[in-house]
Amino acid sequence: MEPSTSSNVTDSEFVEIQLDVHEVVPPPHMSTVQKVRTKFKETFFPDDPMRQFKGQPCNRKLILGAQYFFPILQWLPNYNFKLLKADLISGLTIASLAIPQGISYAKLASLPPIIGLYSSFVPPLVYVVLGSSRDLAVGPVSIASLVLGSMLAEEVSPTTESGLFVQLAFTSTCFAGIFQAALGILRLGFIIDFLSKATLIGFMAGAAIIVSLQQLKSLLGITHFTKEMGIIPVMHSVFHHTDEWSWETIVMGISFLVILLLARQISIWKPQLFWVSAGAPLACVIISTIITFVIKGQLHDISIIGKLQQGINPASVNMLLFHGKYLGLTIKTGIITGVLSLTEGIAVGRTFAAIRNYKVDGNKEMMAIGFMNVVGSTTSCYVTTGSFSRSAVNHNAGAKTAMSNLVMSVTVMVTLLLLMPLFHYTPNVVLGAIIITAVIGLIDISAAYLIWKIDKFDFLVLLVAFFGVIFFSVQYGLALAVGLSIFRILLQITRPKTAMLGNIPTTNIYRNLHHYKEATRVPGFLILSIEAPINFINITYLHERILRWIEEEEDTRTENLRLQYVILEMSAVSSIDTSGVSLFKELEVTLKMKGAELVLVNPLAEVIEKLKKADEANDVRTDYLFLTVEEAVAALSSGLKSQPPSTEEEEEEEEKHTLVTEC
Amino acid sequence: MEPSTSSNVTDSEFVEIQLDVHEVVPPPHMSTVQKVRTKFKETFFPDDPMRQFKGQPCNRKLILGAQYFFPILQWLPNYNFKLLKADLISGLTIASLAIPQGISYAKLASLPPIIGLYSSFVPPLVYVVLGSSRDLAVGPVSIASLVLGSMLAEEVSPTTESGLFVQLAFTSTCFAGIFQAALGILRLGFIIDFLSKATLIGFMAGAAIIVSLQQLKSLLGITHFTKEMGIIPVMHSVFHHTDEWSWETIVMGISFLVILLLARQISIWKPQLFWVSAGAPLACVIISTIITFVIKGQLHDISIIGKLQQGINPASVNMLLFHGKYLGLTIKTGIITGVLSLTEGIAVGRTFAAIRNYKVDGNKEMMAIGFMNVVGSTTSCYVTTGSFSRSAVNHNAGAKTAMSNLVMSVTVMVTLLLLMPLFHYTPNVVLGAIIITAVIGLIDISAAYLIWKIDKFDFLVLLVAFFGVIFFSVQYGLALAVGLSIFRILLQITRPKTAMLGNIPTTNIYRNLHHYKEATRVPGFLILSIEAPINFINITYLHERILRWIEEEEDTRTENLRLQYVILEMSAVSSIDTSGVSLFKELEVTLKMKGAELVLVNPLAEVIEKLKKADEANDVRTDYLFLTVEEAVAALSSGLKSQPPSTEEEEEEEEKHTLVTEC
Repeated sequence: MEPSTSSNVTDSEFVEIQLDVHEVVPPPHMSTVQKVRTKFKETFFPDDPMRQFKGQPCNRKLILGAQYFFPILQWLPNYNFKLLKADLISGLTIASLAIPQGISYAKLASLPPIIGLYSSFVPPLVYVVLGSSRDLAVGPVSIASLVLGSMLAEEVSPTTESGLFVQLAFTSTCFAGIFQAALGILRLGFIIDFLSKATLIGFMAGAAIIVSLQQLKSLLGITHFTKEMGIIPVMHSVFHHTDEWSWETIVMGISFLVILLLARQISIWKPQLFWVSAGAPLACVIISTIITFVIKGQLHDISIIGKLQQGINPASVNMLLFHGKYLGLTIKTGIITGVLSLTEGIAVGRTFAAIRNYKVDGNKEMMAIGFMNVVGSTTSCYVTTGSFSRSAVNHNAGAKTAMSNLVMSVTVMVTLLLLMPLFHYTPNVVLGAIIITAVIGLIDISAAYLIWKIDKFDFLVLLVAFFGVIFFSVQYGLALAVGLSIFRILLQITRPKTAMLGNIPTTNIYRNLHHYKEATRVPGFLILSIEAPINFINITYLHERILRWIEEEEDTRTENLRLQYVILEMSAVSSIDTSGVSLFKELEVTLKMKGAELVLVNPLAEVIEKLKKADEANDVRTDYLFLTVEEAVAALSSGLKSQPPSTEEEEEEEEKHTLVTEC
Repeated sequence: MEPSTSSNVTDSEFVEIQLDVHEVVPPPHMSTVQKVRTKFKETFFPDDPMRQFKGQPCNRKLILGAQYFFPILQWLPNYNFKLLKADLISGLTIASLAIPQGISYAKLASLPPIIGLYSSFVPPLVYVVLGSSRDLAVGPVSIASLVLGSMLAEEVSPTTESGLFVQLAFTSTCFAGIFQAALGILRLGFIIDFLSKATLIGFMAGAAIIVSLQQLKSLLGITHFTKEMGIIPVMHSVFHHTDEWSWETIVMGISFLVILLLARQISIWKPQLFWVSAGAPLACVIISTIITFVIKGQLHDISIIGKLQQGINPASVNMLLFHGKYLGLTIKTGIITGVLSLTEGIAVGRTFAAIRNYKVDGNKEMMAIGFMNVVGSTTSCYVTTGSFSRSAVNHNAGAKTAMSNLVMSVTVMVTLLLLMPLFHYTPNVVLGAIIITAVIGLIDISAAYLIWKIDKFDFLVLLVAFFGVIFFSVQYGLALAVGLSIFRILLQITRPKTAMLGNIPTTNIYRNLHHYKEATRVPGFLILSIEAPINFINITYLHERILRWIEEEEDTRTENLRLQYVILEMSAVSSIDTSGVSLFKELEVTLKMKGAELVLVNPLAEVIEKLKKADEANDVRTDYLFLTVEEAVAALSSGLKSQPPSTEEEEEEEEKHTLVTEC
């Protein structure tokens, strides 16, 4: 196809384009130190945080530095009454949600309810100073509560050893904070990226179901309930204690659950009615407390929260356990809850930042959340992060800055100081209903369906996470899904795609023959594109696969023109290692025996460099390098027909060893 | 640059090429089942082993099938006297090497010397029938012997519990064989590819040093020697038992070591004198045995092999232990020695197959080696494979088929039946010298230097394997190096390269601006190429990095033409997952806020397909798809200047949320 195009053209410049073969040059020289420095920068500072400091005067640099570490300095100087009004409304709204949710989530983590309120007081204060998101509503969240509670309960009973359990919870929180801050400081934030979207959707749906099932205890009024989380022991517990079911509790639970779900649905239908679902939990708590208070003494079956201590967070530094036999457990729990709460916090922050068009720096947020948890662990708080549901309410209620967290925090403080006795008669069943309503939103069926449509393997990952969490445990489900995701990436590299290219008629474009049906083969050439980095885990496969391409080509070739050039289009080979270099050496030898030559097209900078270095060591020839397939075909097709089928010299060389080959 | 080229051209066809924008079409439709089938075939049958059966008559298929499983049927029918002569010479040559090496390697594995000879008799017979390499000389090898011995010795003493130790060695051999055959049958041979060239070079050099240090025991005549393998305990043993050093042993050891090294050097200088190094070990054994026999009674200090049992391999099926507390140990040892011996066997087979231009099927070889070890474990043999040093001698001695293994096997059998008493006075020191001479060849400094030159990270992997083996243990060094290699691949995907492209003047080629200095930017466009698959572990990075490219571009742009199109060249994006799809959605939103559009160029089949599916779900727009950068620039630059800097509509939309952005 190619030569005919050039013969039709009369314009001199165009002819020049066709015949002028552009040299493939090695990239500009860089010393090893420079390379390591560039690599280091790209790996750990892809966002180039120092860029804003460049060329600034010294005092400006100081201010920028202070603003970098304390984002409050960016917005506080310009704070005004209009912003305050918005933050006040949104702060009070999320407080009305945070108080019942805080109590409920603490119970989910098998901790005393008051700790949920403590955790809604101190951490938001820290976040106001350090956080860079304007929409994040900070406090305890369902997933981290569930994981913290279930991991610790595997080794320590929250009922019989409640003191130790609380100590371990604080210690785990401290480790979670240290781990989170360390990720931010060491700029290793990409570790949370290993939880893919598919993993998270499957995991959250599974966790939501596990959490909801746990609530059957309070919804049905069962007193002897399993300590395990799996669906099988829970269902076993439910149906082997039907004698403990309390109809009063069930009626109350279902009524409030219906009310809460209805309120949630209203806010989904009409987002401007966000306050319906935001206020419903507090309203339910108040109504249910009044009911149990009124009928107290008559219905002993309904279990209530009981006495709550008044006053703000006591110090808990002396409760942290950094030695002893539970150290490993607290570190493990800290890391897993740390990663999970970071993932939620960062994802929430990024989502709302994208909606309102400002930037949230992942590494800075990690430091903020980490520091918040370290401080929290010394003031009787357990793991906190930005909650998705409360942040959405915060955003809808018109929050403008992190100040709304301060408003919420003050409201919680007032509650802690003055209103605690009011919760004495709050029935546990309403907390169960609040939790179910909150976690039901974690089940995202439409996102799961989209994943099914786009990528079947991702859907498999989702299912593995989902069923792993439901049937085994939270950690196991997560580990399995992450392992499967990484295995897939390794498999993709182990078995990289290769495609045969053809010329799209009347153009100089070469594309996949299988994909672009109008593309045609070029006689005498086999043009292959390799679509992955070449390294030790795939050279054996690539060698075999390329040989199969050549053999299939030889079988099907109808023209009497034999295969003379194998062109490898290397644009997609992003990197290569020493094993990769040896692939070309082997291919060259193999092709020479078949009387063909190896031609490389458009190798990228790193690949050229390594090939040149190997060439200096007489390891790989680099004569046949071209910048485009078009130029390679144009330059080589002139000599195509003049060559005899096989040179005698080669045959002689082979003869010595082919004795047995023929039999 | 682009528009000026088109204005110079008068030819109608060329103009058509310039203006005719080629549509990016989705690939031909394939059902999920078809896709899974294709993927399965590419993953497990890249060599398409069934291809030779296609279109053959039924009886021919039967013959081909038999030949596939028993490669002996391919060459035996054509076997002739000329071939036999060559195989006889090479078989006798490798036998003269196999007998002393067999005895030595068995001692290296802490096994009775006779087992080394047993292992040189049965396994070669099996390989003759099943093996497809013509050069492989089968028998015990140094690395697998070392690893087997050291791993078992960690839990069971080879001196005080020698019976159990031998049982465990046979059981491990059986597991190694089962594992190897399973890899071949399940076509999972790519698992051995995870040992990269750099890992192997470092590992083998480390193992050679460990093995040589162990020989100091027999070379110095020390009787109280450490059981550990690390360099530190061994050196400690050597210098804390100087009172045990025996000068007679040292003199004899050094003399024979010098002779053997000299013989080795001669064969390196003149490869046609291969028989010098091949015959030297046997010659040394004979001479040293005569010396110790003559001076016996006078020099008690020189330790000798002692009495060896006469007769061929006894059955050992009843010695295999498939239960009890050592089951885990034998499985682990079996898998590690299995992988290591496979790696050596396959590498040796491939190397000589490449030299002599025939094909060795990796999966078939795995089955052959695996079956050979299973049979071996029932006939008192320990792990065997194709030895690099003996195969090289075999090749140089002119071996034509696997028949040379049969000749060697028969020679060993004759030795076992008749000549065993002759080895009674063979001194252990000469075995030590033979081992050192054999393993010294595993240290490949020039290959290590080449790796240093080509790829610094690979060199780091090499060093890790080397020092890991020397200072810790064989398994630890290997695991560390493999882990580091995999980490590097994951890091490459986590931080994929992006490059800014420019137009190479007077052409339609777009290449990396940093690499090709003559390339120039196109005003109004930012052209980026992404050089990796896009998936969950890199979307955050890619998003940040692309934003930085855009911001840097906005900072440095001198023309008053603002950035209107960001073109992503996707030729190197070999695959994408659901998270990857969401990257484009996010980028589109971000760019829209900056008043620019996202344009995708040449997405590959899989990528187009997934984008289309996401598009159907209204998730990603696919209006701006082009086949080449050239066409994208040509098609879009017409509308470049007519657009106002920012549309009012957009500004209004933004206004609502930019209140705080400005402060």
